[in-house]
Amino acid sequence: MKKEMKYVLQAQEEMSYLSGIAALLDWDEKTFMPELGITARGEQTRIINALIHSKITDKRLYSCLSMLKKAALKHHERLIIDELYKQITKVRRVPSKLVDELSRETVKASSLWQKARKINDFNTFKPSLKKVIALKKKQAKYLNPKLNPYDSLLNEHEEGLRSSVVTSLFEYLKEELVSLLNDIKASKKFGQIKPLKLGAQEREQKLLCDDIINRMGLSCERVAFNKSAHPFTIRIAPDDIRITTRFLEPMEAFLASAHEAGHALYESNLPRTYKDTVIYDAASFGLHESQSRFWENMICKSKAFWQGYFKILNKHIQVPLSGSEFYSRLNIVQPSYIRVSADEVTYPLHIILRYEIERDLISGKLKVDQAKGAWNKKFKEMFGITPKSDNEGILQDVHWSFGAFGYFPTYAIGTIYASQIHQAMTKELPNMQTHVQELSFKEITHWLKKKIHSKGKARLAEDIIKSACGEGLNPQVFVKYLRSKYAHIYDL
Amino acid sequence: MKKEMKYVLQAQEEMSYLSGIAALLDWDEKTFMPELGITARGEQTRIINALIHSKITDKRLYSCLSMLKKAALKHHERLIIDELYKQITKVRRVPSKLVDELSRETVKASSLWQKARKINDFNTFKPSLKKVIALKKKQAKYLNPKLNPYDSLLNEHEEGLRSSVVTSLFEYLKEELVSLLNDIKASKKFGQIKPLKLGAQEREQKLLCDDIINRMGLSCERVAFNKSAHPFTIRIAPDDIRITTRFLEPMEAFLASAHEAGHALYESNLPRTYKDTVIYDAASFGLHESQSRFWENMICKSKAFWQGYFKILNKHIQVPLSGSEFYSRLNIVQPSYIRVSADEVTYPLHIILRYEIERDLISGKLKVDQAKGAWNKKFKEMFGITPKSDNEGILQDVHWSFGAFGYFPTYAIGTIYASQIHQAMTKELPNMQTHVQELSFKEITHWLKKKIHSKGKARLAEDIIKSACGEGLNPQVFVKYLRSKYAHIYDL
Repeated sequence: MKKEMKYVLQAQEEMSYLSGIAALLDWDEKTFMPELGITARGEQTRIINALIHSKITDKRLYSCLSMLKKAALKHHERLIIDELYKQITKVRRVPSKLVDELSRETVKASSLWQKARKINDFNTFKPSLKKVIALKKKQAKYLNPKLNPYDSLLNEHEEGLRSSVVTSLFEYLKEELVSLLNDIKASKKFGQIKPLKLGAQEREQKLLCDDIINRMGLSCERVAFNKSAHPFTIRIAPDDIRITTRFLEPMEAFLASAHEAGHALYESNLPRTYKDTVIYDAASFGLHESQSRFWENMICKSKAFWQGYFKILNKHIQVPLSGSEFYSRLNIVQPSYIRVSADEVTYPLHIILRYEIERDLISGKLKVDQAKGAWNKKFKEMFGITPKSDNEGILQDVHWSFGAFGYFPTYAIGTIYASQIHQAMTKELPNMQTHVQELSFKEITHWLKKKIHSKGKARLAEDIIKSACGEGLNPQVFVKYLRSKYAHIYDL
Repeated sequence: MKKEMKYVLQAQEEMSYLSGIAALLDWDEKTFMPELGITARGEQTRIINALIHSKITDKRLYSCLSMLKKAALKHHERLIIDELYKQITKVRRVPSKLVDELSRETVKASSLWQKARKINDFNTFKPSLKKVIALKKKQAKYLNPKLNPYDSLLNEHEEGLRSSVVTSLFEYLKEELVSLLNDIKASKKFGQIKPLKLGAQEREQKLLCDDIINRMGLSCERVAFNKSAHPFTIRIAPDDIRITTRFLEPMEAFLASAHEAGHALYESNLPRTYKDTVIYDAASFGLHESQSRFWENMICKSKAFWQGYFKILNKHIQVPLSGSEFYSRLNIVQPSYIRVSADEVTYPLHIILRYEIERDLISGKLKVDQAKGAWNKKFKEMFGITPKSDNEGILQDVHWSFGAFGYFPTYAIGTIYASQIHQAMTKELPNMQTHVQELSFKEITHWLKKKIHSKGKARLAEDIIKSACGEGLNPQVFVKYLRSKYAHIYDL
């Protein structure tokens, strides 16, 4: 089996380098590429993706894997072969005709979505969205014939998680969050706490963002930082990770940097022994999001953090507020239409709304023609307000246009995981609060590396969380965290 | 022949996209990549280069070309097929064993050159340089069996040019330049004109560089600008060109930006009808350099330019000098050791020295063990001074370590071409002087596009210059230009 193993490892290595190239093409497109480069970039990306696809569907690779699957292997080889076999058999089940159709239709849908956004009209996007949904349902059946279509798509983002579980925990969460939101809205402080608008030159914002990224332990030897229209993190190689933010408002830029740096820490600390294999990857989308949310919310929006950091912020940007006034404004809770600028309390409600709609669109319970109505009705129920336009409502997110169904729930799952990690860490690190106040993050990053990052894709996200936190996904921990934090801010 | 033509065009298109990807990997490595990304980047580059190589050596491509070579074709098809056939038959003649050896040895030589630079000792580099030279001589014989080895290598950079011609024109140029340099050194003004040191923040330098790049007609829709250790220009796609500079001294950054923008204009104005074919390329290294030198020297170091631009410079950077004092300092002539920071008069002497040495190293007339002695002796003869260390002498340039023999002469040829272009343009555009004073470059860029850029690789550089300037390479024009300019500055 030595020859077969060698072949498989070499194939993975090449795929890993090609994926790195695809990542660089993407990063560059979003950061540096001149506008008119887009046509050629599309072709360059197509060529690299076709090469990756031909490696994945290579017959010899499959026959090696099939042999190795039945062979006696060392533990680490077993992990690699089983995961790769699983991924590849799945890809092989989807007919290439369907892959092509999906690829062509999502390109079309993305362009129609952009057009629809420009004229603020969901109708323009609808016909293409219908086709994408029909194709995704087909794809779902091939990916995992034993699951219902939505579960199959969800499984691609959060392996092992079922929509029945998501539905019931989101039901609980919705009730709790709406109730907390209503308490906040009824409080005396609501309306007194004003939004935070600082304003600053891009250069000052950049220095501030550099500061938090460095404090979180990311070194510029390994991680590059730039700006883009939408913040993101991408791995080009194990020692070449890129993060971006945007410089509209200083605190938005700062929190987005901390968020992306959280993702980058995960990518930096994956298990090196599995470099250039399928195990050298995050366990799930939700677990990845837990790492970004942990730093953004549990650390960089916490009272303890600002007890230490407020004076540093003031070195970069003069804040004409007291520390406690600043802290309240930073954590202002306010129902609003746009997911990406939502606060900690309302953010998961935006996700639950999208989950309910996409789940029903895939099951067929909801038609695309009814989707906008459903969106606005649910929005009114949860937030007490109704979107005044499609751009403020159902047209705001790009995800569905590229076929990403089953993705949205992972944002909320990540946030819940983050609160569980925060709780477990607080128990285990007796001086956690002091560390955060003193902006000394070594023990925190060490904990994350040891219990989360270094596991790679060797285990399911849910199992990693069970080991790290003593229990699996538990929204009650998140609700408790929010209740305690916001009771303090809003005098509940 | 339709099927064959289609295959050839498609193959070229794919090669063009792959070359664009290789260019992006290179650009990113030199601008943004975090330091530790270098190992993976080497592998990523290797994979893309191997793909390009496999396309070039594809048997079906060669058989299509061989058939088309003999077929009746339209004019533009004829051009493409002949050029591609020529390039591919050449590549096919070099045994792949030799390609591998050269690739391995130059990687080693580059690393030894860097090591030698660190300890300032040519001896460290010598053994590997010997091997590179031996391999280059072999390669030269395969590339063009009818030419002597040095001419064969020169031909790769400046097609059609022979070293017998270069030797005699460099002899003339050396005599004239040494004589002009001696006149300058004997002048009263020599020693009175001081070096120009302005100093400025990187941000101010960047804005100044952006300004000249925009004035030259490059738009940010098509051209991106960044910094790197050594300035360069690279084409990632026809509408995606990148240029860099470095921000040490403002005028160095400014002139390097104009230089690279000159290269970028050439790349931007190649003939679109030949997009993604071998004709969509510069005619030669020398002609490319003529475009950068024209803007750097003939425009941006000219009196007329500073009559218009001095007040704009002062908006960005306060210059505590009169306009005429600034102009003299900007054009100071001073023998110095380092090629890349040499002035207009001594720069070609640096090139002539390298040419004489590399020509004799390849012919075997000079041994590597004698090269340092030859360098220092020639330097003393031309400049009147002797390098005090290897880094200031034979170790300063990277070119030989990657096997680039026959490259250096093109720097001087480009400068000569630039002076001829300048002369022809001055005759044809009656208000040229005024345009430059008024910083209105439209007619100039139009002339360059029409007479040089839009020819692509459809003709030899020398033929393009003959059509544009009425005669081929003529160093007398360059000498006349220098004499007239520096007589004025140094009161000769």
